[in-house]
Amino acid sequence: MRPNNRPNVQTRPIKITRHYTRYAEGSVLIEFGETKVLCNATIEDTVPRFLKGQQQGWVTAEYGMLPRATHSRTQREAAKGKQGGRTMEIQRLIARSLRAIVDLKALGERTITVDCDVIQADGGTRTASITGACVALHDAINKLLADGTLKQSPLKGLVSAISVGIVAGEAVCDLEYVEDSNAETDMNVVMVEDGRLVEVQGTAEGEPFNHTELFTLLDLAKGGCEQLFVAQRQALAE
Amino acid sequence: MRPNNRPNVQTRPIKITRHYTRYAEGSVLIEFGETKVLCNATIEDTVPRFLKGQQQGWVTAEYGMLPRATHSRTQREAAKGKQGGRTMEIQRLIARSLRAIVDLKALGERTITVDCDVIQADGGTRTASITGACVALHDAINKLLADGTLKQSPLKGLVSAISVGIVAGEAVCDLEYVEDSNAETDMNVVMVEDGRLVEVQGTAEGEPFNHTELFTLLDLAKGGCEQLFVAQRQALAE
Amino acid sequence: MRPNNRPNVQTRPIKITRHYTRYAEGSVLIEFGETKVLCNATIEDTVPRFLKGQQQGWVTAEYGMLPRATHSRTQREAAKGKQGGRTMEIQRLIARSLRAIVDLKALGERTITVDCDVIQADGGTRTASITGACVALHDAINKLLADGTLKQSPLKGLVSAISVGIVAGEAVCDLEYVEDSNAETDMNVVMVEDGRLVEVQGTAEGEPFNHTELFTLLDLAKGGCEQLFVAQRQALAE
Amino acid sequence: MRPNNRPNVQTRPIKITRHYTRYAEGSVLIEFGETKVLCNATIEDTVPRFLKGQQQGWVTAEYGMLPRATHSRTQREAAKGKQGGRTMEIQRLIARSLRAIVDLKALGERTITVDCDVIQADGGTRTASITGACVALHDAINKLLADGTLKQSPLKGLVSAISVGIVAGEAVCDLEYVEDSNAETDMNVVMVEDGRLVEVQGTAEGEPFNHTELFTLLDLAKGGCEQLFVAQRQALAE
Amino acid sequence: MRPNNRPNVQTRPIKITRHYTRYAEGSVLIEFGETKVLCNATIEDTVPRFLKGQQQGWVTAEYGMLPRATHSRTQREAAKGKQGGRTMEIQRLIARSLRAIVDLKALGERTITVDCDVIQADGGTRTASITGACVALHDAINKLLADGTLKQSPLKGLVSAISVGIVAGEAVCDLEYVEDSNAETDMNVVMVEDGRLVEVQGTAEGEPFNHTELFTLLDLAKGGCEQLFVAQRQALAE
Amino acid sequence: MRPNNRPNVQTRPIKITRHYTRYAEGSVLIEFGETKVLCNATIEDTVPRFLKGQQQGWVTAEYGMLPRATHSRTQREAAKGKQGGRTMEIQRLIARSLRAIVDLKALGERTITVDCDVIQADGGTRTASITGACVALHDAINKLLADGTLKQSPLKGLVSAISVGIVAGEAVCDLEYVEDSNAETDMNVVMVEDGRLVEVQGTAEGEPFNHTELFTLLDLAKGGCEQLFVAQRQALAE
Repeated sequence: MRPNNRPNVQTRPIKITRHYTRYAEGSVLIEFGETKVLCNATIEDTVPRFLKGQQQGWVTAEYGMLPRATHSRTQREAAKGKQGGRTMEIQRLIARSLRAIVDLKALGERTITVDCDVIQADGGTRTASITGACVALHDAINKLLADGTLKQSPLKGLVSAISVGIVAGEAVCDLEYVEDSNAETDMNVVMVEDGRLVEVQGTAEGEPFNHTELFTLLDLAKGGCEQLFVAQRQALAE
Repeated sequence: MRPNNRPNVQTRPIKITRHYTRYAEGSVLIEFGETKVLCNATIEDTVPRFLKGQQQGWVTAEYGMLPRATHSRTQREAAKGKQGGRTMEIQRLIARSLRAIVDLKALGERTITVDCDVIQADGGTRTASITGACVALHDAINKLLADGTLKQSPLKGLVSAISVGIVAGEAVCDLEYVEDSNAETDMNVVMVEDGRLVEVQGTAEGEPFNHTELFTLLDLAKGGCEQLFVAQRQALAE
Repeated sequence: MRPNNRPNVQTRPIKITRHYTRYAEGSVLIEFGETKVLCNATIEDTVPRFLKGQQQGWVTAEYGMLPRATHSRTQREAAKGKQGGRTMEIQRLIARSLRAIVDLKALGERTITVDCDVIQADGGTRTASITGACVALHDAINKLLADGTLKQSPLKGLVSAISVGIVAGEAVCDLEYVEDSNAETDMNVVMVEDGRLVEVQGTAEGEPFNHTELFTLLDLAKGGCEQLFVAQRQALAE
Repeated sequence: MRPNNRPNVQTRPIKITRHYTRYAEGSVLIEFGETKVLCNATIEDTVPRFLKGQQQGWVTAEYGMLPRATHSRTQREAAKGKQGGRTMEIQRLIARSLRAIVDLKALGERTITVDCDVIQADGGTRTASITGACVALHDAINKLLADGTLKQSPLKGLVSAISVGIVAGEAVCDLEYVEDSNAETDMNVVMVEDGRLVEVQGTAEGEPFNHTELFTLLDLAKGGCEQLFVAQRQALAE
Repeated sequence: MRPNNRPNVQTRPIKITRHYTRYAEGSVLIEFGETKVLCNATIEDTVPRFLKGQQQGWVTAEYGMLPRATHSRTQREAAKGKQGGRTMEIQRLIARSLRAIVDLKALGERTITVDCDVIQADGGTRTASITGACVALHDAINKLLADGTLKQSPLKGLVSAISVGIVAGEAVCDLEYVEDSNAETDMNVVMVEDGRLVEVQGTAEGEPFNHTELFTLLDLAKGGCEQLFVAQRQALAE
Repeated sequence: MRPNNRPNVQTRPIKITRHYTRYAEGSVLIEFGETKVLCNATIEDTVPRFLKGQQQGWVTAEYGMLPRATHSRTQREAAKGKQGGRTMEIQRLIARSLRAIVDLKALGERTITVDCDVIQADGGTRTASITGACVALHDAINKLLADGTLKQSPLKGLVSAISVGIVAGEAVCDLEYVEDSNAETDMNVVMVEDGRLVEVQGTAEGEPFNHTELFTLLDLAKGGCEQLFVAQRQALAE
């Protein structure tokens, strides 16, 4: 049995709170059960050096974890003097996922940075980050449309992400920490609304997995992302 | 007139939410108006090297600001690869303030680290941090008392901190950002419950200040800290 | 047409040279066409701190690129003072892939580090690294078996990795640089000999991809890895 | 009794040597008893980025300690790869203190950096630094006046700093190391010539202090700074 | 007896392979016996900031060692986050040696960086680097001449370097590792074709050495460099 | 003509002040004309990890330059976050030079670190550092002999260092900055009292130099070091 008798196909309760902080152009607190991530989108009228003069914008992301977001305290990366490999990997994934729904030419010469900071971690922080960052990004771009800076939206729709995995022989959706740390196979799937895939990252933690398991997990992920799109749409409609 | 017609002697609305996150031994979200700081206390059964074998504990603090806690985005210190001077100064101040209310011998060979992370900044982040960290520290130590690890509390009472300053010629209590950035003199005062002082840090931003102004500010700070002690006691009583 | 009229299902010429340098316990130069990676395995009689006393070993990897392995010179990471996100991501992937074929308990309290240094880069450096590192790891462990340090091999077989992708609408195997930089979808697949998967990392560079495309790519990867297993077995048989 | 029977109100012998090194625009060796700090002022015709185009200058400071300025050797910060929190805190304090006596508009678009390097430390290195740096700053600005670069002095007078504290129940002025390390309360006061305050930083090392003790310390500091102003004026008159 | 009965005056077998990698403007693998260094020259149409607008070029070098180039594994400098003192010293030496044969004015406003990466180390890595880098530099400049970018060669000839030393009381040429680690005196000599010296760096590892020993070593170095010039000329003639 | 009509064979006025600071076991201010370096020797009862349990001691050195020791301000290495190549090269040279006069076995399991900090730089800072550090090292070891920690001196005599070079066609001894920056050839020589050499580092800044020039410079260096030995002996005799 999963914790709280959750059915295998079901995500944890998803809660999306917009306008969570005051200053960011988009500010979203997203909760996947006990996992809580604050996603703040910032618009700046500049582009990174490698894009200067190319008449396009950029979307990037940074990820961090508060030291006591976790069961035992994790050392602060600012104090250590560098970001770890896991942090880098996750923020690169978030950024690629967001760029999948933005027409960078249509964005114009500006950069949107989405900061995803984990307030509390109970598994799935990267998938919650992508899902919340998508909403923060919509809010930020809506601001550019509302004030007339942009005439047409550079957005192509929604993107969401879910973790799926095989735990105790069962394929389950949206793993919480206790499941994640016992998973035999663990897969993060990033999807757009029509079901097409932006990223698939599957890892065998114990035994390698076969194609059938992979397809099962992909189906499960599709169902999970559909639940997330509903939550994103509801939040944006409020 | 101050913003929101606030009287000069009055702090902003203070809100202290305990048990804000799940894992920390003490977890407090403190709000001084729009300034919001999450203070998480962690207990570890070890002491820093310089205290090894001295049969005493240690209390320390770390401070951070989410990149978009501020009006415009601040670069992430973890990405820059070092903590700035302001960060270091503040976290050293928080730690000294907390140690003022703890009998380190009575704490035994353990370290309590309080992480103060600013979710939203509107002036007074260091004073809110100290005030909130004090409550988180009480919660953490109460846990040690509750589970029998400690027989007697090493705590000597409460500590709180307030900023006071001279703005447009008026001495005011608990400056918010718009006041702080226009203050002629700015003073942070850390106090224990009987009114005695743990830290006084006054800085002339424009013209130097005289002793009379200093005394006025100290009185104002006393009143402010008393309001904070009330809020801390109420929170701890819940 | 692919460069050199290569059929879509075919890898570039694979060349594996064992004992490439003198000192490493396993030393392999692997070539996937013009991509050349030196994989050196080092055995040390110690384990990382987090494994101390747990009666098991560890397998890890580091990845680097010579500054002029690429078309234009890349800044040396040692001179910059940190490893980039891409480097960290790749070396974590190599290490996980290698651990999939090692019984860490049976390895005993020792660490094997495989350094993968790219001499020349023409796409697929991470997949060449995994494939070559596997052979270097076998050589290193064979040394432990030969000198009687280990009685039984902790190895479970071979692991290899291939990149597949969709380029100009066609699904192709083992992309070289000119293909990789034009790919619509790019996927790295890490596989063991019975066809089961260790890692799947698919990324939509342009448009998201659908499940059918994913399955096509997985099949292509299977064929590619089988070619690599043949090359690995031949090399190890020499 | 204080060391050397020094009366509580009296500073250690103060010695200010101007033109201590050849190249700096202002170069002062200041001695507070056995504490010796070399203060070198450098003028550069540029301003930090955040002041570009604002038609004003900047005054900043850096602080360092030779590794064997102290009783036992302190690790070199350049070798550690970062400046510690104490260093940052002190150099920020020196800089703010110096800016209190400079009209930055009148300085014009140039930066004066005062490097304070502690040759020997016996308590009070930050107060000696501020007091010596003030003289170095005067020398540097006098050079700009002498060569006609500036027509009018941007200086508003002198600034000095003293530490005061409560040691063994007695309020004493200008603590040397042996006193400082036993102080119950420790306060650094930065003052201008008319007795007004630029900075007040009081810290309870043991018990918190009350307002009466604070006032006693402030009076003591006033007397101490007056002794320092005499020494500064004498030095500048030579 | 030296290893392999090598006569004292003789270098190890020298092998110079040009065009070792594809992309670099000059790419040379040089072998001094078992010491193998890859030297890649890169041309960039820019100069360092301190040379901007001075109508001259620059030649610089970077040096690195693969972690398992050595008997036991050396920690990767990129992972440590800084280059060690030995690395810095060597790359500065290589760069100065190369600049001795280039007319920087005639080079024009471009920079040539030669990366010397040690694949396998058996003593003499810095001398092999200089000798190989010289050939790579020639190849790079020949490319500029061939494509008409330069009309006249800025090269003044060849430069080579050899280590000489006193081992077991005998003066020997081109020390391999086992000799180097037992040398009483160790000297690196950088020479141009007419026998004049660019660098001489002699170090007494045990007892200091006298002038006679120095002269003997210099003579030996002269003979060694002449062997190297032959090898360089042969390689460039192919 | 040299500055101050100094004869080619003569060093600048040498001044050695012992016991310059209070705490170091050996503390020497050495002046070569306007070059002033503070050399502080520290004794610690520990050895670096690589020497643990080998019943021998270690002698090492660190080098630094105050930011305004130079004509224009040099950025503080502690603020930059790393020591430059020149610094590393010099401190390694100082350390090797000092080890040449110490029997490390006889020193016992302790480390002597000599910090050489340049107060004012006018050429020859590394040679002044070595010469001054030698005296500081003697003082530190004499302390160990005086207090009975050591029965017999591990010192083998004196070591000194001088720069020599060819300037405007003339071979000159102990170059000051204005000469150094115009030298065609520049050589640093480290010598023991009987004239034998510990280090020779000659660099052609412009044209390569021939053997005859090298010998002339070595003779000049011998004369220079003899002047330094006289100064060292006088200082130690006081």
